[in-house]
Amino acid sequence: MKNRIHNFNAGPAALPLPVLEEIQAELLDFKGSGMSIMEVSHRSKWFDDVINETVERINRLMGLGDDFQVLFMQGGASTQFALVPMNLLPEGQSADYVNTGTWSTKAIKEAQAMGKTVNVAASSEDRNFCYIPKDIPLDPNAAYVHITSNNTIKGTAYTDFPDAGNVPLIADMSSDILSRPIDASKFGLIYAGAQKNMGPAGVCVAIIRKDMLERVPASLPSMFKYTTFADKNSMYNTPPCFAIYTVGLVVKWIEETIGGLEKMEARNRKKADTLYSIFDSSDFYSGTADKDSRSLMNVTFRLPSEDLEKAFVAQALENGLGGLKGHRSVGGCRASIYNPTSQEGIEALVDFMKEFEKKNG
Amino acid sequence: MKNRIHNFNAGPAALPLPVLEEIQAELLDFKGSGMSIMEVSHRSKWFDDVINETVERINRLMGLGDDFQVLFMQGGASTQFALVPMNLLPEGQSADYVNTGTWSTKAIKEAQAMGKTVNVAASSEDRNFCYIPKDIPLDPNAAYVHITSNNTIKGTAYTDFPDAGNVPLIADMSSDILSRPIDASKFGLIYAGAQKNMGPAGVCVAIIRKDMLERVPASLPSMFKYTTFADKNSMYNTPPCFAIYTVGLVVKWIEETIGGLEKMEARNRKKADTLYSIFDSSDFYSGTADKDSRSLMNVTFRLPSEDLEKAFVAQALENGLGGLKGHRSVGGCRASIYNPTSQEGIEALVDFMKEFEKKNG
Ligand SMILES: Cc1ncc(COP(=O)(O)O)c(C=O)c1O
Ligand SMILES: Cc1ncc(COP(=O)(O)O)c(C=O)c1O
Ligand SMILES: [Mg+2]
Ligand SMILES: [Mg+2]
Ligand SMILES: [Mg+2]
Ligand SMILES: [Mg+2]
Repeated sequence: MKNRIHNFNAGPAALPLPVLEEIQAELLDFKGSGMSIMEVSHRSKWFDDVINETVERINRLMGLGDDFQVLFMQGGASTQFALVPMNLLPEGQSADYVNTGTWSTKAIKEAQAMGKTVNVAASSEDRNFCYIPKDIPLDPNAAYVHITSNNTIKGTAYTDFPDAGNVPLIADMSSDILSRPIDASKFGLIYAGAQKNMGPAGVCVAIIRKDMLERVPASLPSMFKYTTFADKNSMYNTPPCFAIYTVGLVVKWIEETIGGLEKMEARNRKKADTLYSIFDSSDFYSGTADKDSRSLMNVTFRLPSEDLEKAFVAQALENGLGGLKGHRSVGGCRASIYNPTSQEGIEALVDFMKEFEKKNG
Repeated sequence: MKNRIHNFNAGPAALPLPVLEEIQAELLDFKGSGMSIMEVSHRSKWFDDVINETVERINRLMGLGDDFQVLFMQGGASTQFALVPMNLLPEGQSADYVNTGTWSTKAIKEAQAMGKTVNVAASSEDRNFCYIPKDIPLDPNAAYVHITSNNTIKGTAYTDFPDAGNVPLIADMSSDILSRPIDASKFGLIYAGAQKNMGPAGVCVAIIRKDMLERVPASLPSMFKYTTFADKNSMYNTPPCFAIYTVGLVVKWIEETIGGLEKMEARNRKKADTLYSIFDSSDFYSGTADKDSRSLMNVTFRLPSEDLEKAFVAQALENGLGGLKGHRSVGGCRASIYNPTSQEGIEALVDFMKEFEKKNG
C-alpha cells in the first residue's frame, strides 16, 4: 500500500493493515448475508457470532477464565470515570486513586464531583507526572484502588502494579490493554477505550470480575449499570456493532498473526527499546519520562527548542511519519507505538530522527 | 451488486449502497491522508471537516437555523431515556409523556426510576398501541412533553405533533428522523439512534435548542451533560468517529442524491402507499396499525396464522427479502422501509407477497 503513512497517532490510532483489508473486502456482503456488517441485526446469528467470538478471544488472550465478564459499552473511557464510582463505590466507603497524569486526574475529579470519598493515595504531580510512584500507602479498607496503567500523555507506565492485597484494582488500560500479559486476578475491573490498542473509537471494553457486579445499586438508570450489560451480553440495547466487529478482527490478528500476548509484548518491547535507545545515545533528543517508568506505548521526548520540535513534526510528516506532535497540554513530541505499529515503522522513524539530528544538531 | 439482499431490518438497517461503496473505496486512505478514517485523530483537520460538514448538512436538511446545536453522543436512544430527565427536568417540576409503545414505555420507566415526576398525559396501551392518541390534555406548566414520533415495533407514527404551546416537545425520532420535513421550532430536543434512518449503530444524534442547555445541572458527571457536548462540538472526549463519518455520507446522500427532505418524504410516501395498499385489497394480509396512525417507516402486518407467518418470513429470505419478522415482543411480520429502502425493493416485496398469497391464500 504505497499511499499509507507510518501513523504514530495517540488515538484514534493505527490499525493493522490486514484488519482494514478484511473490513474492506467484506464491507458490502458480510459472510454471505447479502448485507454489510453495519446492516445486519444485532439480534441475528451473524452478529451473535461476531460478539461471542470477540469475547472469547479477549478471554483467551488475557487468560480471564470464568471469573470475569467482557462487556462492550459506549461513551469511551471518560464515561467510565463516572460509572466506576457510581457502580462500585458504595455510600460510606472510600476509594484509593493513584494520580499519574491527565487521565487519572480526570477520573479523580469525576468521582469527587459526584460527592464520593476519594483518597489520592499517591501522585507524581510534583515532577509533572514523569514517573510512577512506588511503595504507595494503600487503605486496606478501600472499596478499590484506581490506577491508570499507561499514561498516554506523560509517556509513563507501571512496570509492576501496586499490591493492594484483597482490595480490587481498577485500571484504566485505555492505552496499553493487550500490549502484554497481565495477571488479571488482581483486578476488579479493567476498562479501555478501544481506539488505541484494540480497535476504532466508539466502543469501550469493560472487563469486570463477576463479584463486583454485586455492588451495583439497583437504583441507577439501566444504561449506567454494569449489570445491564453483563445480564444481556452487552445487547440490552443496540451495541456499536461495527466497532465491536473491528475489535474482533484486531484481537484475531493478535491471537492468530502475532501469536498471543507474550509475542505481542516481545514485539512491543523491541520497538520501544529501539526508539528509547536514541535518547540514551544522543544529546539532541531527551525522553521526558524517568527511565524506570517509561511507557512501551507512548514515547514522549523533547528536542533542544520548540522551533526544532515544530520543524521535526512537519518534516517527519513530509517523510511519511505522521502524528508525532505531543499532546497540546504538554507540548514536545510523542510517538505512540501501539500494538499495530511495526518494527519497520520504528526503524523508519529512527532513521529520520538520526537524519534530522545530523542536519540540525 | 448481485449478492446484496433487499434488507427490511428494523435497525441496524439497510444503508444506501453508494454510501457503502464510498466507505469501501476510501477505507485504507482517507482523502490522501495515508490513513483510514478510523486511524485519523479526532483533533485533526480531516475529522474536523467530517464532523462540521455533517452538522451543517443536518442543519440545512432540517432547517434548524441558529437556535439549535447538533450533538453526536453515545449509548443509543436508550441512554437518552435517562439523560433527558437528568438534564432537562428540574426538581419540583413534572414532565408530560405520551405512551405510544415499547420505547415510550421505557422512556417513562427510566424517568420514574430516578424519582422524577412523570405525568402520562395519554396512552394507547388500551388497544395494544395500535394508534396515536389525539387531543391530548397537556399540562401548560410541564417542563417538556416527551413523544416517540414513530413507533418502530407497533408500526404507528404521528401525522401531526401535539400542540404543546410554549412547552417544548422532546421527541425520540430514532426511527423516522430525516424521513420528512418537520417544523423544528416546536422542539426543545430531538434525539435518534442513527442505526435506522441515518447511519450505523454507535452514534446517537441529539438536536438541542440552545435555551434548553440552561437547564442542565452543573453537578452531573461531564459525560452525562448536554452542555459538555455542546461546548466542545461533541469532542470533549473521543467521539465515535467512523459512525459520525458514515452519518455524514448518509446525509450527503439525502441532500445531494435524493434532493432534500421533501423529496425524501415523497419517496417514502410512495413506498409506504405501495405496501399498505396490499392490506387494503387483500384479506390475507392485515395491517396492525389504525389507518390514520400508520407509520411510513415500519409496516407491521399479520397473516392468517403464525405458521403462515413463519413460512412467509423464511421463503421471503430465500427470495432475497430479509428482516421481515416482527419484533419478538409482538410477533407477526414487519417491513422496515427506512430512507435507504428503494421503491424497487418495495416492488420486489409486493410481488413476493402476491405470489405467497396466491399459493397459500
Ligand atoms: C489513559 C486514557 N484514559 C482515558 C482516555 C479518554 O478516553 P475516551 O476518549 O475514550 O473517553 C484516554 C484518551 O486518550 C486515555 O489515553
Ligand atoms: C423508537 C426507538 N427508540 C429507542 C430505541 C432504542 O435505541 P438504542 O438501541 O439506540 O438504545 C429504538 C430501537 O430500536 C427505537 O426504535
Ligand atoms: Mg496521561
Ligand atoms: Mg538524550
Ligand atoms: Mg414501539
Ligand atoms: Mg387486509
